[in-house]
Order: sequence, then structure tokens, then C-alpha cells
Amino acid sequence: MSSRISLTQMIEHYALTKKYDVATIFGDRTHNWGELQNRIAALAFSLQKLGLKEKDRLAVLSLNSDRYMEVYYTPWWMGAVVVPLNIRWSARENQFALTDSEAKVLFFEQNFISVVEQLKAESDGTVMHFIYMSEGDCPDWAIPYESLVNTSGRAERVLCGDDDMAAILYTGGTTGHPKGVMLCHAGIWSSSLPVTHAIEITESDICLHAAPMFHVADMSLLVAATMMGAKQVFIPQFEPNAVLQAIEKHRVSFCLLVPTMIKILLSSPKLTAVDFSSLHTIIYGASPMPEGVLMGLMERMTNVELVQAYGQTEMSPIVTLLSKVDHTIGNPRLKSAGKPTIMSRVQIVGEEGNILPTGEVGEIHAAGATVMLGYLNMPEQTAKTLKDGWVASGDAGYMDEDGYIYLVDRVKDMIISGGENIFSVEVESIISTHPSIQDVAVIGIPDDKWGEAVHAIVILKPEQTVTEQALIDHCKKQIAGYKCPRTIEFRTEPFPISAAGKTLKVDMRKPYWAGEKGFI
Amino acid sequence: MSSRISLTQMIEHYALTKKYDVATIFGDRTHNWGELQNRIAALAFSLQKLGLKEKDRLAVLSLNSDRYMEVYYTPWWMGAVVVPLNIRWSARENQFALTDSEAKVLFFEQNFISVVEQLKAESDGTVMHFIYMSEGDCPDWAIPYESLVNTSGRAERVLCGDDDMAAILYTGGTTGHPKGVMLCHAGIWSSSLPVTHAIEITESDICLHAAPMFHVADMSLLVAATMMGAKQVFIPQFEPNAVLQAIEKHRVSFCLLVPTMIKILLSSPKLTAVDFSSLHTIIYGASPMPEGVLMGLMERMTNVELVQAYGQTEMSPIVTLLSKVDHTIGNPRLKSAGKPTIMSRVQIVGEEGNILPTGEVGEIHAAGATVMLGYLNMPEQTAKTLKDGWVASGDAGYMDEDGYIYLVDRVKDMIISGGENIFSVEVESIISTHPSIQDVAVIGIPDDKWGEAVHAIVILKPEQTVTEQALIDHCKKQIAGYKCPRTIEFRTEPFPISAAGKTLKVDMRKPYWAGEKGFI
Repeated sequence: MSSRISLTQMIEHYALTKKYDVATIFGDRTHNWGELQNRIAALAFSLQKLGLKEKDRLAVLSLNSDRYMEVYYTPWWMGAVVVPLNIRWSARENQFALTDSEAKVLFFEQNFISVVEQLKAESDGTVMHFIYMSEGDCPDWAIPYESLVNTSGRAERVLCGDDDMAAILYTGGTTGHPKGVMLCHAGIWSSSLPVTHAIEITESDICLHAAPMFHVADMSLLVAATMMGAKQVFIPQFEPNAVLQAIEKHRVSFCLLVPTMIKILLSSPKLTAVDFSSLHTIIYGASPMPEGVLMGLMERMTNVELVQAYGQTEMSPIVTLLSKVDHTIGNPRLKSAGKPTIMSRVQIVGEEGNILPTGEVGEIHAAGATVMLGYLNMPEQTAKTLKDGWVASGDAGYMDEDGYIYLVDRVKDMIISGGENIFSVEVESIISTHPSIQDVAVIGIPDDKWGEAVHAIVILKPEQTVTEQALIDHCKKQIAGYKCPRTIEFRTEPFPISAAGKTLKVDMRKPYWAGEKGFI
Repeated sequence: MSSRISLTQMIEHYALTKKYDVATIFGDRTHNWGELQNRIAALAFSLQKLGLKEKDRLAVLSLNSDRYMEVYYTPWWMGAVVVPLNIRWSARENQFALTDSEAKVLFFEQNFISVVEQLKAESDGTVMHFIYMSEGDCPDWAIPYESLVNTSGRAERVLCGDDDMAAILYTGGTTGHPKGVMLCHAGIWSSSLPVTHAIEITESDICLHAAPMFHVADMSLLVAATMMGAKQVFIPQFEPNAVLQAIEKHRVSFCLLVPTMIKILLSSPKLTAVDFSSLHTIIYGASPMPEGVLMGLMERMTNVELVQAYGQTEMSPIVTLLSKVDHTIGNPRLKSAGKPTIMSRVQIVGEEGNILPTGEVGEIHAAGATVMLGYLNMPEQTAKTLKDGWVASGDAGYMDEDGYIYLVDRVKDMIISGGENIFSVEVESIISTHPSIQDVAVIGIPDDKWGEAVHAIVILKPEQTVTEQALIDHCKKQIAGYKCPRTIEFRTEPFPISAAGKTLKVDMRKPYWAGEKGFI
């Protein structure tokens, strides 16, 4: 077990060098770096007493908080693995993740009591301990979080790192099942490092976690902020007034938002009443920045500079960054996803596996320090996606002569709505289980608020009828609300198909995307 | 072979993303990043044709140049190991390094033709190829450097990294023999990373290599500058006018110097005639910054900020950094060596191996990402120095409550003169071979220019006589000039000894260091 690059080294470092400086702020609760390390070591000690060991998996289902940060770092401290669950997933989906990862502990908070009760009822018994992260009444089948922290015992930091597994993050799967992406210490750390340079994070910075912490993007920011010893402020979830208040109150200097959230902030009536002069950088991901939003930002939030990140869970996740200096009105590179980071390698690969020259569109393949260990329990999927250290991203794109990457399509047939990845095949498979359905194709169509909206096109079986709402309700019972179609179109003529018999989604998307920039 | 963290990744990265931007400048010669990668891949190709393979060792004996940078990165590109030889060492010392490392290639330039001829004559035949790095007449027993670069062949980058050996650096040994410190990719990389943050290096920065590139300190700066894609300017060696001219001409923004060099620069009559407004940071090492020099700098070079680095070859080398903000007049922490970097761990260890609390003096032990692989061919020395991942530094010191490290003595009995480490025992063993000598103790005494000067105290055998100059000449024949005593004191009374029979050097140093800050 080699441990040159370890995520917990940073906790030890700042507990030594700035013990009394504030590390975390959540509501009225603050902890300094010394306390943070103590709490992590104490929680790890109690978990060891409960029987948890190195390499065990610990899941968490929670809105953002300082304790969520502790729940990331405590498994790492004890050489174990964190499994952050998607708060928007259905109980059925998270049940899969719990079972698949064999999680022995589930951390959760008050917003998820009923979901966890359901998970518990259907549990196969792998989860041994349910730990309640909120204040106040703890369900009698759970252990109060603070009771585990309140111990005089301290677990020694386990010196794991490098290729040792640190997290399993579930992504929607092209096969219909979520896939557990196994990430290691050096991979996650190496993804965050270029972010410290791009944002220019220093020890005096203050980071706001408003984007969901279960998501690999905010996990990456958490590690970047911790690497540089920045103070970290947590709000439960994105809400424009809460974001603006937190920025003003805590003098926040950088945060992660998706373009949709930035748009909402810019149109907030509170914007003019709030002092956000401390904010110097927003890092965003998931989709290109519309010039209109950039212009709005430059007019309304004059101090703020932008960094774009592109990646995928399989790459821990960051592959490319579009730097601050590239964010200028009229720069054609605004439409790109930026350049590979110093920790990543990118190739554009043709259909025969050949590397394509500058300007030619092919599949984006990524390699380097951040590459995943593989998919949990899915050796075939792993072998298909990860070859000789290269991850086939499923995204189509091209590279210009300076290494900027432009996305032009998603080979994986994925929709990005409000920053969430939705695999069409997963939604299609749910819709297709409805008795009235003969054929279904799910595509993303332009949406002012969410970037893309899920749109289903269906062909009914002869002599069957069903309403749009009934089909949407059918989906809502089985998958997360954000994955369900917002609109359904009934069609009678057959779908366009390719010579190989595949549905030609590009043709189906075209009428919706005419005149729009985006993925067709 | 894992390769998450690899030194050559950065060459590939900037050859992709800033191909046409200048990478290196030496005299009238410039190369852009694309050319740099091409030259490295071409040189590696030619070396492979000559029979060189992965893990082979390639030595270099040269003043600074752009080609020295290529000679670092070419072995790394081909999965081999670089052995930078100390330009101040005697032929005898470097012969040991060549034999010990089994170097198959020796790169050298015009200043070292006669030394290399001597090495060649005494060679055991391990060195197969001598490669002449200078322009002009190449000795007939050597291969001209550019003839190897001028090939249409390109070696593929070998994907090594992490724990793979990258360099063997020779340090004076406490046993009298130099020790070959084996460093790996992730170690060297992790040592340089915190330097990028401390200096705040960006892609638009320009780095000057004026300190000797064979030395681990400048190697670390080379890797830091390359990591961030900074332009790099090389001058053959430190010379105050050459440094000032290079800063002005190339708009240099940061460089590495030792305090002695900074003092020389500040007293240069040319200082007022030169525009050094581009220079924002000097990183220095080897000894604390005297406040007088800091004041001089603040008055005479108003843009310049300082960063101090402390480390040792065994730690690749950086262990602690004293940041820019700590460099203020009157700050008592100016006397410290700074805090551990985010990649290093430090403990102060007592005589029983116990970890000492804040403020107590013990031996400084370091661990973390940068730790060496070990000493080449010296398993016993390795086991003595490197235990459970911790390197016993041989330096005595204490830590304050914020993790700042203060050096108070050198357990290893070492003298630092002009930034070079000199082990007393090595000098003592040479002096003791003179027929007139009964006993000898070598200590460091204060020296305005070099920080410390080598001073020998000798007791002659009965009825023997020898002059000071004769003893100095005796040393010069066998070891590097900088290691030879500057002054010799003849004594008749026996040396003070401890209860355990060890010479009490602290007592011997005291009279010289009265009223001085420094190591006694």
C-alpha cells in the first residue's frame, strides 16, 4: 500500500499549521481545523468500535452540511470508502447502490428519514448501522451522529493513498442499471489539483458549497478547497437567496454553480441589495456558458471571473478546464470545454480506434492521473470503457490546434438537465414497461431554465390509449423526478432508423434544436 | 507500473496546449514547447538506437543550459534515470558516482573535457557513450549532442511514474563515501508542487536558472516551472552581472538563489542601472534569511517577495516552506525554516524515538509524498535513515505551535557553505590521512560571504611539523575545493570529549559563534 498522494494528508496538515483557524461553517456552527481533525478521528474511532474496517463502504444520503464534509473524510481517514448517494434518486435506485456497494453504514439526515425507512425495510441486512446526521429527535433505529463524535478515543490516520479506493459514485447507466464508479485517492486528488491553480485558491479564500455535495463536481471542489486550506461554508442546497446571503455574510470568495444556477442568481431581485464584492470566481460545469449569461455576469457581478470544468465521473471527474482568461465576450473558445488539465490526457478517437487529427470529430478519450479504478462488479462494462488506461467518454467532439476540446454530440445518448446526467436508455426502458407502449425514444430538447428538458416520443400499440400524465406518473413511481419526461409526443409513423437498424436520434432532435446552439 | 503522477506528462501537456510559445532560452537559442518535446523524443530515440533501455542510468556533468533541461527530461521520457553530477566535485568523487550508479552515458560540456578525459581513462567501461553538449569541436571519443537530436525518429513517451525511479543524486556521506539518493517521479513532482503555489507560478511567468542545475534545489524549481508551463531562461552559472542582465533582457519573474548570492546581487554596482521590475519572487534555501539582507532587498528591489525552502536530497528535497507573507521585518518566524508543505509530514523525535511536544528540541524527521526510495547499494544506510516511511534528517530542531520548524543544530555534523553541504567526517578522514596528523576536528565557523567556512582544528603527532598550506593542498588533491578547510588551527591540548568518548564539537564551535546567530 503506497501512500504518497493521500486525501487525508491535508486534514493533518492544516490541523498542524492553522489549528485555530475556522475550517467549516454551517448555520451557527463553526469548527476550526484542529476540531475538524479531532471530530474525524473521533468519528473514525467510534466507527471502528462498531466494527467498521479498512476498505469497508460507508454510504451517505444528505443535503449539504459541514458534517457531509466529515462523512467524506472519516472513511478516508480510516482507509475505508465513501458512497455518496444521489439525493434525487428514487428509493429503488439508491437501494441498488446500497446493495451493489455492500455499504455497512448509511449516514442520513432529517430530510431523508422516510426514504431511509423504506430502504431499511427493503434492506438485505448489509447496512448494519444507520447514523442520523441532524440535530433533534433521532429515529429509534438510528444512532445520533454527535454521540459517535463525543468520545475521547481517536483513530490513527490510516496511511492509505495512491491507487487505494476512496469513493464509489453511482452514475446512471447506459444499460439501465446505475454503475458504481470506483475512484482512488490519487485520482480524486489529481482532479482537484488543477482547480486550485485555475481558481487561484489560497489559504485566505472562502469556499461556498451550494451545489449538491453528493455530486462528483462538488466533491472535487471540496478536495480542492481543503488542499489549499480554504475556509468552507455549507448551505443545505442551492436556493438563490441563501446563496446571496451566504456570500455576503461569510465573504465567500469562490463557489461552484451550473450555468442554470448562475442564470437564476442573475435574475434574482435580491441581487442589487447584496454585497458580493468578495466573490472572485465561480467555477461551473456541465454545459457551455451562454454569452448572454457571461455578459450579465460582467455587468452585474463585476468582480467575478469564471472557470469552466468538463469531465465525467470516470475521470474523478475533471478532464478539461476553460480558464479565466478565456472568458471574454466574443472569444470563440467560449463554446469549447477548455483544454486538458496538467493531470489529464485527451485523444479524439475514430471508429476504428485510430487517433484523429486536429479538427476532426470523434469520440473523446481521456487518460492520466485521474482515471477511475473501474466499475464495481461490472468487469465487462469496465473492459468496454477503460482500455490501456484510456476512458472512452461517450462524448463526441474535436480538438483545435491548441488543445481546446469542443463537444459536438453525446455518443452515450445522454441528456444534461440542470447539471444532471440522464441516460435516455434508462428512461426509455421505464416507459417501455407501460402496457400501452410499442416504441419509445427519449431525447433532450432546449429548455431555458435547465439547458435541456427530457422529451419522450412514443408510438402506442394498436388500439391502446394513454394520457401524457399517466405515462409521466408511471415514470415517477420508478425513477427520480428529474429523469422523468416533462413532455410526451405521440406519433404514429415509425421512427427513422439507420442502415444498421438503430434509431436515428439526431434526426429526431433536429426540429427542436433548429437555430439553437447545443447537442443535436 | 503505475503512472498517475509522471514528470513527462507536463512536457506532453504544454507541447499540446502551447506548442508555439517559447519554452527555453539560452543565449541566442530559443525553443518552443513543441520543439522541446520533439527534441526530447528525438534524443530518446537516438539513445534507444545506441542501446539505452528503461531503468538505465544517464549521468551529466555540465554547467546550466537549455540542454541540461533536455538531459533531465529525456531519461524520464524513456523510462530511464538521470544522474546529475556535482560540478564542484573532484574527478575521484564523480568517478565513485559513475561507478556506483553504473551510468551508461555521460553527457558533458566544454568546461569539463579534461575532467571527463580523466574519468574516461579511469573508467571501468560501464560508461558506453560520452555525449558532448557544447557547440564546436567535439572530442573524437565523444558524440556531438545535436547529431543525436537531428533524427527523424521519435521515441514514444514511456508511461512511467509514481514510485518509478527518476533520478539518483549524490550527497556527501557521513561515512566518507558519497551516497546515491534514489528519487522517484511522484516524489520529485510532489516536492515541486507546493513551490508552484508558494511562488504563485502561472503560464505567463519566466523562470531564471542561475543556481546550479545539478543540485536538487534547482531541479525542483525546473520541475515546478515546467509543471506550470513557465518560460525558462538558463545562464551557465551564477555571476551577478549575468543574472541582472538576464532579468532585464528576458523580463524574468522568479528565480532560485541562496542568501549568499542575494547578498552579492544587492552589493553589485550594476544594480541601479538595471530594470528588474519584472522579478516578483526569489526562492532561496539552505540557510535563514538575515534581516539585513531582507531589508536591503525591500529597499533596493521593491517588487521582490521571498520564499524560503528547507529540505534535503532524501526528501526530493522540499520539506518546509516559509511563505511570502512571513517575510516581514521583525517577524520572529524569519528565523524559522517555515512550515511543512501540504505534501510533507514532520515530527520532532527524541532520543528514544518518542515524538516530542511543541517547543522541545529533537531530531527532525520527515515523511510524505516526497520521500526517497532509498540509498543506492546501501541497504544498511537506508535502513538507518528511512524507517516506516520517515527520514531521519540529521538536523536538530523544534516546532512551534503553528507547525513552524526551527533548526538548532545538525546532528549529522554538517557544514553549509555557500549552499553546499559539507560533512565534517569526510574532510576529517582526508586530513587524518596526512602522516603528521594525530587528531582532527572539522567545524563550520561564521563567514560573511558563505554563511559558514570550513575550519579544521588539528593536533600533530609528536615531533611532526606541517604548514597550514600543506594540509590544505593535501585536501585539494582528493576532494572538491569547497570542502577543503579555509583555515587550520594547530592545538596541543586534547579535544573536549563527552562521557561517551565523542568529540564535543558544540564546545569547539562556541568561541567562534559567540554573538552570532546560527548553528553551534
